[in-house]
Amino acid sequence: MTQPGRFFEDFTVGQMIRHGTPRTVTTGDQALYLALYGSRFALQSSDLFAHAIGYPRAPLDDLLVFNVVFGKTVPDISLNAVANLGYAGARFLRAVFPGDTITAESEVIGLKETTSGQTGIVYVRSTGFNQDGETVLEFIRWVMVKKHDEASPAPEPVVPELPPEVTPDQLGRAVLPLYLHGWEGSLSGSRRRWQHYEVAERIDHVDGVTVEEAEHMMATRLYQNPARVHFNQHAESQGRFGRRIVYGGHVISLARAISFNGLANAFHISAINAGRHVAPLFAGGTVYAWSKVVDSAELTSRADIGALRLVTTATVDRPCDDFPGRDSDEFDEGVILELDYWVLLPR
Amino acid sequence: MTQPGRFFEDFTVGQMIRHGTPRTVTTGDQALYLALYGSRFALQSSDLFAHAIGYPRAPLDDLLVFNVVFGKTVPDISLNAVANLGYAGARFLRAVFPGDTITAESEVIGLKETTSGQTGIVYVRSTGFNQDGETVLEFIRWVMVKKHDEASPAPEPVVPELPPEVTPDQLGRAVLPLYLHGWEGSLSGSRRRWQHYEVAERIDHVDGVTVEEAEHMMATRLYQNPARVHFNQHAESQGRFGRRIVYGGHVISLARAISFNGLANAFHISAINAGRHVAPLFAGGTVYAWSKVVDSAELTSRADIGALRLVTTATVDRPCDDFPGRDSDEFDEGVILELDYWVLLPR
Amino acid sequence: MTQPGRFFEDFTVGQMIRHGTPRTVTTGDQALYLALYGSRFALQSSDLFAHAIGYPRAPLDDLLVFNVVFGKTVPDISLNAVANLGYAGARFLRAVFPGDTITAESEVIGLKETTSGQTGIVYVRSTGFNQDGETVLEFIRWVMVKKHDEASPAPEPVVPELPPEVTPDQLGRAVLPLYLHGWEGSLSGSRRRWQHYEVAERIDHVDGVTVEEAEHMMATRLYQNPARVHFNQHAESQGRFGRRIVYGGHVISLARAISFNGLANAFHISAINAGRHVAPLFAGGTVYAWSKVVDSAELTSRADIGALRLVTTATVDRPCDDFPGRDSDEFDEGVILELDYWVLLPR
Repeated sequence: MTQPGRFFEDFTVGQMIRHGTPRTVTTGDQALYLALYGSRFALQSSDLFAHAIGYPRAPLDDLLVFNVVFGKTVPDISLNAVANLGYAGARFLRAVFPGDTITAESEVIGLKETTSGQTGIVYVRSTGFNQDGETVLEFIRWVMVKKHDEASPAPEPVVPELPPEVTPDQLGRAVLPLYLHGWEGSLSGSRRRWQHYEVAERIDHVDGVTVEEAEHMMATRLYQNPARVHFNQHAESQGRFGRRIVYGGHVISLARAISFNGLANAFHISAINAGRHVAPLFAGGTVYAWSKVVDSAELTSRADIGALRLVTTATVDRPCDDFPGRDSDEFDEGVILELDYWVLLPR
Repeated sequence: MTQPGRFFEDFTVGQMIRHGTPRTVTTGDQALYLALYGSRFALQSSDLFAHAIGYPRAPLDDLLVFNVVFGKTVPDISLNAVANLGYAGARFLRAVFPGDTITAESEVIGLKETTSGQTGIVYVRSTGFNQDGETVLEFIRWVMVKKHDEASPAPEPVVPELPPEVTPDQLGRAVLPLYLHGWEGSLSGSRRRWQHYEVAERIDHVDGVTVEEAEHMMATRLYQNPARVHFNQHAESQGRFGRRIVYGGHVISLARAISFNGLANAFHISAINAGRHVAPLFAGGTVYAWSKVVDSAELTSRADIGALRLVTTATVDRPCDDFPGRDSDEFDEGVILELDYWVLLPR
Repeated sequence: MTQPGRFFEDFTVGQMIRHGTPRTVTTGDQALYLALYGSRFALQSSDLFAHAIGYPRAPLDDLLVFNVVFGKTVPDISLNAVANLGYAGARFLRAVFPGDTITAESEVIGLKETTSGQTGIVYVRSTGFNQDGETVLEFIRWVMVKKHDEASPAPEPVVPELPPEVTPDQLGRAVLPLYLHGWEGSLSGSRRRWQHYEVAERIDHVDGVTVEEAEHMMATRLYQNPARVHFNQHAESQGRFGRRIVYGGHVISLARAISFNGLANAFHISAINAGRHVAPLFAGGTVYAWSKVVDSAELTSRADIGALRLVTTATVDRPCDDFPGRDSDEFDEGVILELDYWVLLPR
């Protein structure tokens, strides 16, 4: 009667799941997003700036759209997840504006029972649409989901080939042609454009932001993400950490907002190659971030913009002036997020 | 000079009080409401869903409207209240859309001094209007209010007859004729419609939500409800509980949002028969809820929708899988709210 | 690469600085402002009330505009400030409506190295514009800023003449001609108009509001003010106070909202003569306020409105029923803000 969420046995490869609660996103959502993260990227902040560079108005923050689409998938995909294992191949394909309505669906593209026999890994490709049925975002994620009955037989294992990265030829589709003369560095906060960044460059974003329980819960609810571990202290006090866990998308949005300091002209996230939540974040922690430019690419038939591939590392209670990271798979103390993604900048 | 609020002697039966601070409600309010409660009912979430079933756009959440109207009455009715004793006969009469402006007035319909001679009970019928003067909501509530001067004479007692319930023939007026083919269960989150629920059915809504001080204060301010016990820790630290008390309407909104899990198609609250705040809620508590279907009714000349009468019980720090309630007037430990109301579902 | 912010040596008298991150303000911002402060002034709350008195719709709260403009100046002016010393000559020159886009610039009007040789005082005149290039707000502020290199030579000292007050002939420009018959006291919350207040009158605003970390951080981010002391508990735990400091503009907005109780018809702040943050505020503190009417003035060629000059004093954890203030420059215990400003009321 109530929604127990799907268990591992409830998924089959090829299954299409249409997610509930379509969502009209508004300037109200954008104001809340601002209050939660303090983002200062000019395009999303100002209709006037947007108009000057060729947009009809300010689009919504990319990660607001990502988190809304992600939230829609939770009741159907990950309500009984033991762990979010990763995501890959996320592509932002169309700008979303206030007034647009977002719907989402997911296709099950892989299933593999784990050796314990108690859980299995579910791979899905999730897609967000606008009111015209146009794809605004797609991404692959895989989660470890409980079996309802451990005795139920294992399905034929299907492990999809995961794209190691979104290639540059796939980038930039969500960006309208820019009128570059309208891009004023004094307004965007920086005169550094795409060509001014160098591969291997490292940027400490300096600022640290402490997270409160009220903030991450308001954010997660704004995304209509009902995953229980974020909201229920009464239950979590008996859980593994004794505390509510901050939703991973909140960490990503924090890191992105912090990254403005050093990447002010990186106006758009075009793709996420991979994301890894190295450790959980709890309220009271202070998040810092730094980024490394790992690649730089021209875009096919776009003379106005270029792409930088970044790896942004976020930490808790640890400044990033010495660029903490990892030694192969051993992460430095304090690292909570490693995000590999493409951003676009004007040329 | 400042508003001391009315004392018991300041009320007379038949008095009409026009409340201050008219309020234009917007998509900004709806976004905040979402961030505060995480509601997932499709009609209020999506202009597209709303349009598909015959609405011009997504209406505001019913309880957002209720709380806004209630908030307007506080400075005039209950600023010197010792206790909110109850409400009855609440009817939602017209959908409210972003851009509408809400005003409110109250009529004093009863007065009765208490035996102590220090307080009296004030009964009011409060009405909320939109910018066209149409009634969007009305309800009766009664509160115990301090006397300014204990020596002042008791008024002739007038105790209004309180409606034990809103009868089904009064339900549904706020609902536009629905185009049922447009109602997709995959989007609304459930395929269970009105006829699929049975009287006496009990639904554990499962999810628990912990409340933070910042959240309930932001909510109560959003409703422009200035009742002091919600905001002032300095004063309340010397008060009865030593803490700020969470506004009762916040508890109702939480319970309603939690009830989505099991009642996803209950898209509209049509009436509240009675509400009782059994115990106060404080920040840090985790709210759970369950509902019992106590009646089911067809609506006069409406083939598209049906009504369920629910009693929703909310608890603090106590899961509801064993349906805690009461033995006559003795409530189980942990119960904080009992709400008797009518919801509407598509048929 | 990241923005280190300007040091004292980086400023020169006459320098014009155009600030980044233009900002379209919306009903979403206004809803958040309401949730953060609970303001109840009718003009900003209701399109209908606004229309009745001659406005096209409800304008945004004056202090929301002030805080947004102030926030824009922070990255360029005060990121390396040791102290915000004061402001003066703030004039609100044009109403701001949802949908307007705010930009800001500052002119350096004075510089004076301090005797320590480690810091200097920077005086700026900051101006906020709307999308049509019209000035909506201007103010002078002065801050003590660190030198980057203590050995760098002191500039020729230039100390601008600071206006001791904004004179009445400069007031009221942001106010459209009012249709006074449309001003209903039952809606605005008071029948007291300009002529009903007396110079030397003192008003205890009664209500106290406790501040939470999540609230002041959300507010400060909504204003896109990145000053670090408000957000980073990890760093501030090693700082002077061991805690995050609440942004001063949050205190002013709280005091203004509290002042509704006693000043309900003071619908507009027309100018700020001087503001002084006597002591820092920290989360957990409860803010109270009282006001003294220190002057009353007619406005040139405006028969519809009059001005009151107020000194509002805000305190923490100290009710204001005995009007705490100062003895020359010695402030009473608990005082955190003294704000000298002009408000307008209908006649």
